[in-house]
Amino acid sequence: MGKKIIDKWLDLYSNRVHLMRTSATRDLMSTAERADVISFAGGMPAPESLDKEAFREAVARVLEKRAEKAFQYGPTEGFYETRELACQLMKRAGLKAHPNEVIVTAGAQQALDLIAKIFLDEGSEIIVEAPSYVGALNAFRVFQPRVISIEIEASGLKIDEFVRILEEKSIPPKFVYLIPNFQNPAGTTTSLEKRKSIAELSKEYKFVIIEDNPYGELSFYGKQIEPVSLFTDNAIYLGSLSKIISPGLRIGWIYASPPILQKINLAKQGADLCSSSLSQLVAIEYLSIIDFDEHIRKIRKIYSEKCKAMIKALEEFFPEEASWTQPEGGFFIWATIDAEIDTDDMLSLALEKKVAYVPGSSFYYENGGSKSMRLSFSNPSPEEIYEGIEKLAAVIKEQIALSKSIFGFYDKKGDR
Amino acid sequence: MGKKIIDKWLDLYSNRVHLMRTSATRDLMSTAERADVISFAGGMPAPESLDKEAFREAVARVLEKRAEKAFQYGPTEGFYETRELACQLMKRAGLKAHPNEVIVTAGAQQALDLIAKIFLDEGSEIIVEAPSYVGALNAFRVFQPRVISIEIEASGLKIDEFVRILEEKSIPPKFVYLIPNFQNPAGTTTSLEKRKSIAELSKEYKFVIIEDNPYGELSFYGKQIEPVSLFTDNAIYLGSLSKIISPGLRIGWIYASPPILQKINLAKQGADLCSSSLSQLVAIEYLSIIDFDEHIRKIRKIYSEKCKAMIKALEEFFPEEASWTQPEGGFFIWATIDAEIDTDDMLSLALEKKVAYVPGSSFYYENGGSKSMRLSFSNPSPEEIYEGIEKLAAVIKEQIALSKSIFGFYDKKGDR
Repeated sequence: MGKKIIDKWLDLYSNRVHLMRTSATRDLMSTAERADVISFAGGMPAPESLDKEAFREAVARVLEKRAEKAFQYGPTEGFYETRELACQLMKRAGLKAHPNEVIVTAGAQQALDLIAKIFLDEGSEIIVEAPSYVGALNAFRVFQPRVISIEIEASGLKIDEFVRILEEKSIPPKFVYLIPNFQNPAGTTTSLEKRKSIAELSKEYKFVIIEDNPYGELSFYGKQIEPVSLFTDNAIYLGSLSKIISPGLRIGWIYASPPILQKINLAKQGADLCSSSLSQLVAIEYLSIIDFDEHIRKIRKIYSEKCKAMIKALEEFFPEEASWTQPEGGFFIWATIDAEIDTDDMLSLALEKKVAYVPGSSFYYENGGSKSMRLSFSNPSPEEIYEGIEKLAAVIKEQIALSKSIFGFYDKKGDR
Repeated sequence: MGKKIIDKWLDLYSNRVHLMRTSATRDLMSTAERADVISFAGGMPAPESLDKEAFREAVARVLEKRAEKAFQYGPTEGFYETRELACQLMKRAGLKAHPNEVIVTAGAQQALDLIAKIFLDEGSEIIVEAPSYVGALNAFRVFQPRVISIEIEASGLKIDEFVRILEEKSIPPKFVYLIPNFQNPAGTTTSLEKRKSIAELSKEYKFVIIEDNPYGELSFYGKQIEPVSLFTDNAIYLGSLSKIISPGLRIGWIYASPPILQKINLAKQGADLCSSSLSQLVAIEYLSIIDFDEHIRKIRKIYSEKCKAMIKALEEFFPEEASWTQPEGGFFIWATIDAEIDTDDMLSLALEKKVAYVPGSSFYYENGGSKSMRLSFSNPSPEEIYEGIEKLAAVIKEQIALSKSIFGFYDKKGDR
């Protein structure tokens, strides 16, 4: 759908349409899906993380015991059992939620859309990490907010900068959007100290915290830092089965205070009536069959090894101008090239060499990231990672050489 | 979630939150789900319409042949096969669509949300039938449009009124939303002549037509009138498997011109990334297993008999002040009581007597419908329909008697 088409309905669209951006990740799906491309683009779970036998058994049980329920509409907020399941998973992160404080969504992506819907008017101010999850930025964008991006460092949001912004505002932002664990795209983790600070600031300045935690369980060292939501009821916590069980089910959830949930429920009624009954019941049965602790140990090992393979390959092949984050969990490494290259322009060259990544600019609301890229190690095998990074390194080196031949006559620090 | 809770985040919500209305249908789900209540409220398909054996077989095939695909993310627009399937179903209605003109959605409800998102700014004008589908009204409402309601008669929208409104506007409405077949809630069907007129008007005045067709296959007499989308490319056609296969899968689709689809695709990226892969593959296999013609014949018979049972019971039990529509397909009868009653107020009394319906006011954007109710015959058995209508008739008669004892001293036409 990338080609230019004459659009005779152009004057009928809403203003927000002109703000919508396509996600490079999504656009690349079709290319990345091609078997001959090694893709570091999409955040797709490892195929080997699925226990197919348990999946089969789960589906068989659903059909045996409650085919009628699976096939029928369910309540907007999700089945009680699905919400109980969400509570059990959150308990592992230290949160004591009640099923009535949970609403089931079509992945955490829908949660972002619903939250934007209930909080954002045109011009509403929100704060996001820079870089941040492209899907969140796009979900927020359509509601035409004013977005303030705050840089992150290895320990999370730059708090001084955050406080400075809060201090200079007469009206606080509506919310701050955070991915505290193994951030997408940066792979960084917000420190406990910063989590507590942000929770305190939310009370002092009265704003909401959107705590998006799809990767929390995927710590390579088995430790989960306490979530921000533990320290304030101003937080809205987003969970998801997409990265730990299956994204194909489209099961996520929101844990929030009942008054907020009530509004989200209304928004969800209009958005899709209810989430898939079949998916919910399959998820419930699947989780009753597998040993969850063992499953998590297994997938942590898978991702930890893939991450190691990628770092090893980066060290071996990437040029000296490159640096990258050292994730302690999750799916992503964020690599930056300190040279005159543009990762947007470079993408087509990489695809020619049968390797894909997501350009850094996708993860910035306005400008930024043009020398960075997100490298996802979750889906390819360690061997593919090795091969793909070698290929990508060759593309980068070529680009650097080319830029040096063009800019070589100038002082690198000169203001061209 | 109906109880009043102190909401300390009240000043943080968007303006649209204050416009959101809860759907009586959705709120009643919990009551209607109680086994002792005969519910004419929700538009839930008949449990006996599901071929459980085929469902089992479909799921087994998915797991055997492509468990990995079912468990993984899919493309935003849906699998090509799902879109092909949508095209095959639309062909039965006379539409020749190409899979590239189709996007898969989480039921047709998501389609309504996405369409509202790409067309509506605050104050944008749209036209809806009065009464109309409550889920559409709620999906539109959050984008703060100005909604013009045009009454429908047995043959559909009152065209004269429509033309008068179009003539007096300097800017045409963004779109008109129609359910031409077996309308929800009225059970009426738009005539071929009116379909053609509306298509012509869309060209003359340049507006979009949203043609929502979840019930088209459910004609009791086997005939489908040609869709509006056949007569103009200004139409956006919405299809769904919810009423003919299963709502628990959450599979619907949008058929529209590529420029419009492109915007919808962007909106869907932000809304949920993609629809459930598992659901899509199960639907594809299910439809390859069953004999679709035979399946449709079977479910037409189911609903036709239930409709007959309801009409028979209405004739037997409802008071002389009552009138109702005579649907030729679909799930719903619209009953109106010409007396001093309020179907909103009466609902709690009906629930006390263990019978549920949806009050008419739910189906009007602003005011209207207070003497009407939507009676869904799709889910209960003919015996339950008979018993439920008898109970409901007793409640109505009691209300009429009560209103007569209060208002009996006044002339009925007097201006109290």
